[in-house]
Amino acid sequence: MNFTLNSKRVFSLSLILTLAISTVRTANAQKEVDATKKDTIMEIAFIMFDDYETLDVFGPAEIFGRLVDRYSIKFYSLEGGIISNRHKVPIMTEKLDAMGVPPEIVVIPGGMGTRKEVDNLPLIERIKELSQASDYVLTVCTGSALLAKSGLLDGKKATSNKRAFSWVASQNTRVNWDKSARWAIDGKYYTSSGVSAGMDMSLGFLADRHGIDFARKVAKEIEYHWIENKDNDSFVAE
Amino acid sequence: MNFTLNSKRVFSLSLILTLAISTVRTANAQKEVDATKKDTIMEIAFIMFDDYETLDVFGPAEIFGRLVDRYSIKFYSLEGGIISNRHKVPIMTEKLDAMGVPPEIVVIPGGMGTRKEVDNLPLIERIKELSQASDYVLTVCTGSALLAKSGLLDGKKATSNKRAFSWVASQNTRVNWDKSARWAIDGKYYTSSGVSAGMDMSLGFLADRHGIDFARKVAKEIEYHWIENKDNDSFVAE
Repeated sequence: MNFTLNSKRVFSLSLILTLAISTVRTANAQKEVDATKKDTIMEIAFIMFDDYETLDVFGPAEIFGRLVDRYSIKFYSLEGGIISNRHKVPIMTEKLDAMGVPPEIVVIPGGMGTRKEVDNLPLIERIKELSQASDYVLTVCTGSALLAKSGLLDGKKATSNKRAFSWVASQNTRVNWDKSARWAIDGKYYTSSGVSAGMDMSLGFLADRHGIDFARKVAKEIEYHWIENKDNDSFVAE
Repeated sequence: MNFTLNSKRVFSLSLILTLAISTVRTANAQKEVDATKKDTIMEIAFIMFDDYETLDVFGPAEIFGRLVDRYSIKFYSLEGGIISNRHKVPIMTEKLDAMGVPPEIVVIPGGMGTRKEVDNLPLIERIKELSQASDYVLTVCTGSALLAKSGLLDGKKATSNKRAFSWVASQNTRVNWDKSARWAIDGKYYTSSGVSAGMDMSLGFLADRHGIDFARKVAKEIEYHWIENKDNDSFVAE
């Protein structure tokens, strides 16, 4: 074979190389953009239903919502439109079926409404689908009863509001219910105790992803006395 | 004069007396019903505007909203309809002008939106009217800047978020701004420091009206670590 290079061949080779390098560079650049986006903006879907507990939702919404460079929150419900509760807090929601790409994070609040929603099979089915497709699922208070009902917590550690603990635990006995945790983590599932514990868990989630200093900074900005120890819930009911 | 009573006169007199006693009794009973209603159900109007701070609103909304036998909460804005913020929390509000009887309590949240709303004269005027007609006015975070702008805090003690303190204080220098309080009370005006401090103040308000044990019970029910000391804000910014 003749390996001598004439000017035409050199030009052709260099053109091919340039194109190849350019293609690889473009692909890498796109990957970097996607990775940056993924790292900086995660979509969080709050699953709303009638008679949700106010702070279960808006405590985490304050914490994640203010981090506009990292998280983007949206509220959804089965039918869409205004969802309210016994506190009379009417929040506008989008229809679950109109959701496009599944969110990276699902948040399921608690509240007296969960007593009814554990038997709402279409809602439980949607919670199951979204939770399976997401990177993380966070439940507050009796919201863990809804997630437990989907079967996704089977064999996993989880907790809930200690005042409603026996009712929640009775919804699925295959879950390893933790009676003392402020919040529990098992893989991608974060479950918290009652109401304000959802804020402690959200800050704990930030600490796990962005470091303890970052989480403490957020707690300080919202002047919140963060209970940092997830394994000990001092609010366990008598 | 002849004071002898015949049977006809006795009957007439007793009829008049019975009617008079009955009328007084009915009036007293109505007064008691009104007093009971006044003591048990106080209406709370949250004054909403674009880019309010999420927890400034929904922390107090959780605390008062759950006490359905004592308080009833409603959300208002100048134009009515959906009001949202940079956290993307869309809340349904009623139009301020459609409000009937003024509420017993007005709550004014803070948030980045206050930077613009201090110059919204129709809003400041409505805040002034409602605050004058109400029994109590509670502000959270930079919400005190809006109340200060109305002139109602002139010569009164008030506080605000320590991170935005100089801006808030510059809105009205006739207010006795307290740089160290978690929340301040002057007559019917309650003003709190930033974000979560609104929850501490709301619990303090409950303590003032219903006793410390009642407030502690509510804090425990929502598993909130209540900072009870209104005179010392440990979150004072460096």
